[in-house]
Amino acid sequence: MSRINQGNHISIPMPVALVGALVDGRPNFLAVGWVSRVNHQPPMLAVALNKQHHTPKGIIENGTFSVCFPNVAMEQVTDYCGIVSGRKADKGGLFELFYGETGTAPMIAECPLNIECKLVQTVELPSNNLYIGEIVSGYSAERYLTAGKPDFKKLDPLLLTMPDNTYWRLGESVGKAWKDGVTLKNQLEENNAQV
Amino acid sequence: MSRINQGNHISIPMPVALVGALVDGRPNFLAVGWVSRVNHQPPMLAVALNKQHHTPKGIIENGTFSVCFPNVAMEQVTDYCGIVSGRKADKGGLFELFYGETGTAPMIAECPLNIECKLVQTVELPSNNLYIGEIVSGYSAERYLTAGKPDFKKLDPLLLTMPDNTYWRLGESVGKAWKDGVTLKNQLEENNAQV
Repeated sequence: MSRINQGNHISIPMPVALVGALVDGRPNFLAVGWVSRVNHQPPMLAVALNKQHHTPKGIIENGTFSVCFPNVAMEQVTDYCGIVSGRKADKGGLFELFYGETGTAPMIAECPLNIECKLVQTVELPSNNLYIGEIVSGYSAERYLTAGKPDFKKLDPLLLTMPDNTYWRLGESVGKAWKDGVTLKNQLEENNAQV
Repeated sequence: MSRINQGNHISIPMPVALVGALVDGRPNFLAVGWVSRVNHQPPMLAVALNKQHHTPKGIIENGTFSVCFPNVAMEQVTDYCGIVSGRKADKGGLFELFYGETGTAPMIAECPLNIECKLVQTVELPSNNLYIGEIVSGYSAERYLTAGKPDFKKLDPLLLTMPDNTYWRLGESVGKAWKDGVTLKNQLEENNAQV
């Protein structure tokens, strides 16, 4: 099989988020694709932000930040938040805001899922800093839930791929985790027992 | 608007990967959802692995690891790699393997996108360790490319959400990044000019 070297600037389907912080007392948001859960207990996530951005100043100032997940209907305004700097535009004014337990992590009422974090560690990398936050709480409006839990078809999250710079919607469900592999596990164990 | 507190164990749509390493000389793979790009230049990514797993031993031993992205057709074998430990099963034997520049990061021919990394930093967190790797190269077979670049509809990557533990396919494209926000930027600037 031919394998073609794709160089080292590779990205994968990324959940797009608006990372929020109070910068000099003013709510600001930055569109990011580099966000992931990183610790199970206590629950933590990390966001990797270019050092030149405006939002990190607010994360350091307050020791708090938000990670707000827009839906597909918010594609245009989300993209705008990735194009224009908070130094030049009042991005907080684009949304209905609310605050949670920390009181200093601005969250977006229009986003179907909002997470507020306390900063626990900053990892300095060459061009980006990785901000690791302990998750204080997540918030969703009732219309995005089924049986009290986030329903991702209702959330309709926005995904991003690079280098084609394309936004995507979540497609159909194709299976269940920690379950569909059990059939294969049983088959393989049966085969081994017969050898 | 009512907002319902979802506690702090929140996940978002995650690209599922098989993280590979040579453990005591034997290729092993672990299914993970906590993977993200973290640095622009040089390109880096990070994977967050529970400290009890078998694969981290190999990452530390060799200072290299792979991040292999399965497609939807590999859903069952991927889930299996998240259920069974490499201490008990030969997971490397499930795949056709190949190696790249590092020579010690096992990659999976069946995966439409494989990335090999050199370990640059380990961040210790309470229950997980975050392994930050510089991306040496990414590899795709020609059938997954369009005009020489990864085509994510052809790649058909596997996504995971929690706490519903559901695998998903990528849906339809809904827009272009660093482009669709420009219309809104122009409108807002025109409005401001008129005030």
